[in-house]
Amino acid sequence: MLRIGISGCNGHMGRVVEDICRSAPDIEIAVGFDILGTCDRDFKVCTSPAEFDGEVDAVIDFSSPAALQGLLEFGTTRKVPLVLATTGYSQEQLTAIDEAAKLVPIFRSGNMSLGINVLLELVRRAASILGSDYDVEIVERHHHRKVDAPSGTALMIADAAASALPYQPQYVYERQSVRKPRDPHEIGISSVRGGTIVGDHEIIFAGRDEVIELRHSAQSREVFAAGAVKAARFLAGVEKPGLYSMADLVAAAGLD
Amino acid sequence: MLRIGISGCNGHMGRVVEDICRSAPDIEIAVGFDILGTCDRDFKVCTSPAEFDGEVDAVIDFSSPAALQGLLEFGTTRKVPLVLATTGYSQEQLTAIDEAAKLVPIFRSGNMSLGINVLLELVRRAASILGSDYDVEIVERHHHRKVDAPSGTALMIADAAASALPYQPQYVYERQSVRKPRDPHEIGISSVRGGTIVGDHEIIFAGRDEVIELRHSAQSREVFAAGAVKAARFLAGVEKPGLYSMADLVAAAGLD
Amino acid sequence: MLRIGISGCNGHMGRVVEDICRSAPDIEIAVGFDILGTCDRDFKVCTSPAEFDGEVDAVIDFSSPAALQGLLEFGTTRKVPLVLATTGYSQEQLTAIDEAAKLVPIFRSGNMSLGINVLLELVRRAASILGSDYDVEIVERHHHRKVDAPSGTALMIADAAASALPYQPQYVYERQSVRKPRDPHEIGISSVRGGTIVGDHEIIFAGRDEVIELRHSAQSREVFAAGAVKAARFLAGVEKPGLYSMADLVAAAGLD
Amino acid sequence: MLRIGISGCNGHMGRVVEDICRSAPDIEIAVGFDILGTCDRDFKVCTSPAEFDGEVDAVIDFSSPAALQGLLEFGTTRKVPLVLATTGYSQEQLTAIDEAAKLVPIFRSGNMSLGINVLLELVRRAASILGSDYDVEIVERHHHRKVDAPSGTALMIADAAASALPYQPQYVYERQSVRKPRDPHEIGISSVRGGTIVGDHEIIFAGRDEVIELRHSAQSREVFAAGAVKAARFLAGVEKPGLYSMADLVAAAGLD
Repeated sequence: MLRIGISGCNGHMGRVVEDICRSAPDIEIAVGFDILGTCDRDFKVCTSPAEFDGEVDAVIDFSSPAALQGLLEFGTTRKVPLVLATTGYSQEQLTAIDEAAKLVPIFRSGNMSLGINVLLELVRRAASILGSDYDVEIVERHHHRKVDAPSGTALMIADAAASALPYQPQYVYERQSVRKPRDPHEIGISSVRGGTIVGDHEIIFAGRDEVIELRHSAQSREVFAAGAVKAARFLAGVEKPGLYSMADLVAAAGLD
Repeated sequence: MLRIGISGCNGHMGRVVEDICRSAPDIEIAVGFDILGTCDRDFKVCTSPAEFDGEVDAVIDFSSPAALQGLLEFGTTRKVPLVLATTGYSQEQLTAIDEAAKLVPIFRSGNMSLGINVLLELVRRAASILGSDYDVEIVERHHHRKVDAPSGTALMIADAAASALPYQPQYVYERQSVRKPRDPHEIGISSVRGGTIVGDHEIIFAGRDEVIELRHSAQSREVFAAGAVKAARFLAGVEKPGLYSMADLVAAAGLD
Repeated sequence: MLRIGISGCNGHMGRVVEDICRSAPDIEIAVGFDILGTCDRDFKVCTSPAEFDGEVDAVIDFSSPAALQGLLEFGTTRKVPLVLATTGYSQEQLTAIDEAAKLVPIFRSGNMSLGINVLLELVRRAASILGSDYDVEIVERHHHRKVDAPSGTALMIADAAASALPYQPQYVYERQSVRKPRDPHEIGISSVRGGTIVGDHEIIFAGRDEVIELRHSAQSREVFAAGAVKAARFLAGVEKPGLYSMADLVAAAGLD
Repeated sequence: MLRIGISGCNGHMGRVVEDICRSAPDIEIAVGFDILGTCDRDFKVCTSPAEFDGEVDAVIDFSSPAALQGLLEFGTTRKVPLVLATTGYSQEQLTAIDEAAKLVPIFRSGNMSLGINVLLELVRRAASILGSDYDVEIVERHHHRKVDAPSGTALMIADAAASALPYQPQYVYERQSVRKPRDPHEIGISSVRGGTIVGDHEIIFAGRDEVIELRHSAQSREVFAAGAVKAARFLAGVEKPGLYSMADLVAAAGLD
């Protein structure tokens, strides 16, 4: 039985984590942490990790950067692995995480979705095989309120392809202003915006008379919660301190 | 039995027209025109329309603008409807076509594919219903040798949407240089280039929690030949002189 | 200003309707009906329509068949148009709705999503133009808990195509057990099941060297709430009693 | 410079191989074999391999099973690697190929498309990571003349997934006759038939709130020619006799 602590348990993502844990036969919710304190839950809720003196195998955090210090102290002194799924840490905080990871396993990822990280792995694999004979293009779609383009994940996908291609690609974001054939060493990245689309990412390898497409569609932000629970399971199997990411989880899963 | 003449019968598209006519039980190839003259064909081939004095119900032209004058003379004096599927006419030639169309039915279209023209019709219909509650975006894909972006067909699709929307949209070709939410009155148009993709066009209507997509994929340029044969059939049923296009054919088909 | 009443205002769909109404500048929530009575809302909540004596231009119902009688009495005596977005009515209740619709405008649809109803309209249009030269196929995708296959909506799409085709198609649900080419007069319907997919429907018109695809993807059941608000707006503009559906709304929208 | 021999050089696929070789800067066409003998080509054409006494680094065969014996004799006596892209060999011939492969490198694959073989590799990788938390479904699309369903390639994809999944999946070809939720241990395989679609294969991994799709689209059978030329390049780098396939080529490419 894996005993999980949920930091930020009263927030939306904390509740999704709770829901996923409840439906897993091998997981038990040991404790919740939330500055708002206890609520209507059937598990113990503490306003800070320091208050808790029970047993827990890993803590998943979806609260805010403000909770980091308390979590790192708890994790390092109690030897409890941490899954940090919160975003927006300062540079100073990232350094503190690195330090703590020398003492206890810590998991942190740019994108906590297992699916996106599997996609990144497949993209690297496809790019290494298809090499320079196939043109690489990326199309991402998001809701109309998103202000940045392309998405950070689209750039992660492009970087994954670039790391495995036999050439150093140039990223191209528009083609309307130029009148010339495509340069074989470019990766076109298109950003579609509309409605409430949560996030679709597609990478295309177009060769002579054939196209390979790899696509990830997220239906909700809840995929990050599912990824965090997987990360907790992964950390529980890790023996050594260190900073782990979804790439490590994916690599380990591939060995099974 | 519909008696068809094929102008440019020795060229690639002429041969595709021939192939389609042969597989149609109600079509007979009456004659071929080609400056290279006869070849290994089982139908009469003349080096110019003037040479031919037999009966023909419509002529499909996939030769070159150079053949236009002879075809217009043939069509107007012999009262034979013409399907002009050749592109690249000069302004002067377009005027000559307009004049000839006062005497005999002539068919000419920016895109001879029936599918693309059906898509245009569906886009107008969807845009008129979905109005300003759904964001409109277009993604087109073509082979890596194409020099212009977006494709002329993508612009035809955008124009079709614009003609039916309750606002005057602005076409946007890139989003990477700006950091702001999507303007509701814009149509994003993305151009993907890679491999030997013949031509894919997709229009997206993205609303609250739902997306409608309309897509056309061309497998080869042969779709233009199929469209031209349909156009010949359509002209045979038309009684009055005039300049007809795929939009007329589509509108007529919808009434069946 | 359109004054809307929300029946079932404490339920999930009622709250989505509330949210949509709040973000519409021309809509005001006049009242909520819910057997649980008032809660933490800033609008009046009555436990039944009979309690309410204020003004309201239309009532949207997402409660349960049990609320029908009270709603019909309220609608017919007060001359308030009703949008019935609840499902699962008995045959007797459907008859009562028909009767009430002789006195006041009532809106009811098999699928309240505007998008799906636009798709149905586009399918009819495409089928009427493309006729027998293009093969029609449908693929639907839903979550792995769905017990029926194909989905009711997939059958609505097939029926829409069939109503416009020049032949009477046969629906085919599997091809593995037969070894023969496709019959031109069949519509293949494939059902994909997996994960938590809310509902994707795709119809394909495949011709010679070209394919037209029309696709609808639902991200959540909230699309039904958006459709219901549109229906309320539509009813407010209708003068005569009658039973209206999304097909009427779509047809009217197309005339703008 | 890689000197290639083309067996079946007057056939359609032979001509595509020729075209690809001409556009490769490091390939030279050394000879063509064709029972019809020489034609209008600028390279030597022999009616059988035995006639040829020049130098050649590999022979690509797209002729017919009838040519096998001559090719195997040529390959084994002259130590020339062979790419056998012809299909339809008898069991006896397959045994002869195995024997010859003890003396000289021979390449033969169920599907000569590089893209499909990359897809198979990605499917195995994805299935091994995503394991039992994601439902696996396959949809394939082909032209309306295809008599078998599902396609052989769809079954290859299902087998690739099955080989990497932690359970033994059951293949399911229809869902209309049953009314029950999806069994987690099944792989649904849907076959769409229409128009002239050359071949699309899509595999879906559907999880909680996310979907990963891998898709291959073939535009023409010419992808097999491109794959055969890649195979010839691969064989030229192989030192030991043996029977090689696209899986070996893909594995080797991944190591770069």
